[in-house]
Amino acid sequence: MQYAFGVDLGGTTVKIAFFDREGTMLAKWEIPTVVKNSGKQILPDIAASVLAYIKENDIPKSDVLGIGIGVPGAVDEAGIVAACDNLGWGKTDIQAELSTLTNLPVAAGNDATVAALGECWKGSGSDNMVLITLGTGVGGGIIVNGKPLYGVRGAAGEIGHMVLNRNETRVCGCGKRGCAEQYCSATGIVRVAKDYLAQYKENSSLRAIENFTCKDVFQAAEENDAAAIAILEQVYAYMGEFIANICAVLNPAQIVIGGGVSKAGQMLLNGIKRHFVRYAYHACADTKFKLASLGNDAGVYGAVKLILN
Amino acid sequence: MQYAFGVDLGGTTVKIAFFDREGTMLAKWEIPTVVKNSGKQILPDIAASVLAYIKENDIPKSDVLGIGIGVPGAVDEAGIVAACDNLGWGKTDIQAELSTLTNLPVAAGNDATVAALGECWKGSGSDNMVLITLGTGVGGGIIVNGKPLYGVRGAAGEIGHMVLNRNETRVCGCGKRGCAEQYCSATGIVRVAKDYLAQYKENSSLRAIENFTCKDVFQAAEENDAAAIAILEQVYAYMGEFIANICAVLNPAQIVIGGGVSKAGQMLLNGIKRHFVRYAYHACADTKFKLASLGNDAGVYGAVKLILN
Repeated sequence: MQYAFGVDLGGTTVKIAFFDREGTMLAKWEIPTVVKNSGKQILPDIAASVLAYIKENDIPKSDVLGIGIGVPGAVDEAGIVAACDNLGWGKTDIQAELSTLTNLPVAAGNDATVAALGECWKGSGSDNMVLITLGTGVGGGIIVNGKPLYGVRGAAGEIGHMVLNRNETRVCGCGKRGCAEQYCSATGIVRVAKDYLAQYKENSSLRAIENFTCKDVFQAAEENDAAAIAILEQVYAYMGEFIANICAVLNPAQIVIGGGVSKAGQMLLNGIKRHFVRYAYHACADTKFKLASLGNDAGVYGAVKLILN
Repeated sequence: MQYAFGVDLGGTTVKIAFFDREGTMLAKWEIPTVVKNSGKQILPDIAASVLAYIKENDIPKSDVLGIGIGVPGAVDEAGIVAACDNLGWGKTDIQAELSTLTNLPVAAGNDATVAALGECWKGSGSDNMVLITLGTGVGGGIIVNGKPLYGVRGAAGEIGHMVLNRNETRVCGCGKRGCAEQYCSATGIVRVAKDYLAQYKENSSLRAIENFTCKDVFQAAEENDAAAIAILEQVYAYMGEFIANICAVLNPAQIVIGGGVSKAGQMLLNGIKRHFVRYAYHACADTKFKLASLGNDAGVYGAVKLILN
């Protein structure tokens, strides 16, 4: 038998999974991400966990094809990370370092790109797709003909920082103003809602919730709260324009929506599609929309695929 | 010796060039594009011209590797055109039809994509680039790792129809409102200028020119006309935002600017870059900008490269 590991390195935990050659997940566990000391302990911790698993399960090391890993930062095609702010890392040759620590082949990619590869392979996706993760931020992973598109600095798919509103006065986490992330992420949706409630005087169940969340906005809309419905129409319009612009560049077969906001489900997809068709170039108008289906496992599936390719 | 033909099929003329295997252009000529009768005569005319050249020059047909052709419409990877409005074509299997007519291998691509391949191979470009043609319209061709990116309907690179202004009331040629083409093409720049001159009362040399052109606007700005300078700043801001959004998707090494508007040269590049850095995601901020260098020959070079690949 032949095996490989998929690793999804996040800011809080590291998800590690063990797969057979066909991509069946045989085991999955987590270890904490130790970000102190500029994250120096992260790769040794991962190496130790992988090597311990191999030893405990008496797996001949020659049967292990390697480790694929997704990291929260731009990774170029040589597997070099320019910087990961969340991990405290500066420039890191993650492939070389983890390979030296484990004596196994290593392949690395950006976490959103790797999650897209996971959805393409084992989830909702297809060979020409864009995974859009609507969570705390907005991330993107692009698959063209079954392969991840990295970009020269590993920054392809940084779609959360496309400009949607050049007149925005508030600053995005990236330092610019008016990024898609400011309207389409979970925090962005709450901001759009607060702006709406400040501007209009109509009643809304949201006014009774002190620190309402994105989930509360969807909930209120489902309960027919007129303000919440109007707020989400604004959000869907932003999302529709945003995604239409991505499609005018890439013309993918499919858009796959993941991240926490995607828990709103079919209601979200219907809303986005309603506005997407207003903004989409005609040759892109029949782009398919799906919800991501692997949830938190997309990362480890995509990561191991980097090795099993 | 081995040879191939590159064909650039436009709405008015067909440019045909004859190349050796290394891509040295040995001959170049044009024939008219006969669009009447739904463009039925176009492919037979091209076939006749190519076959006549082979015969007149006593070239053994076995030495001809094939014909590459760029067409003004979306072409999928199988070489099928969904429709070319300019040519009167509906769905056309251009590779099969031209191959049957000539008994030679044929490869087809979208004209802007093919021009990008030409600039990548023999012009200003590199292996990871986007060619943006600013002409009557705005076109785009994307090269990733030296290969054209087509998209599932052949519509990748239809960047002229990214939405730049959702509040636009005027309709773009594509039927939508607020497309990049409405502000960044030669006609778009004239429109921005007319809007500016209608809105503000300041003097401008442009007011004395009845039907001023895009070239007149650049000329006036070079002659220090304050209104023309302000108009171009608006245009550069549109272009900077537009290109920053493309870069957030693709993270190319290089943007190559072609088309008639690119004759404005370094002044145009400097203006675009001044605004690009305001809108660009930080990992894309060092994207290189160049002017296209093959001019009208980009199409035939890129077309023949489809065959010489």
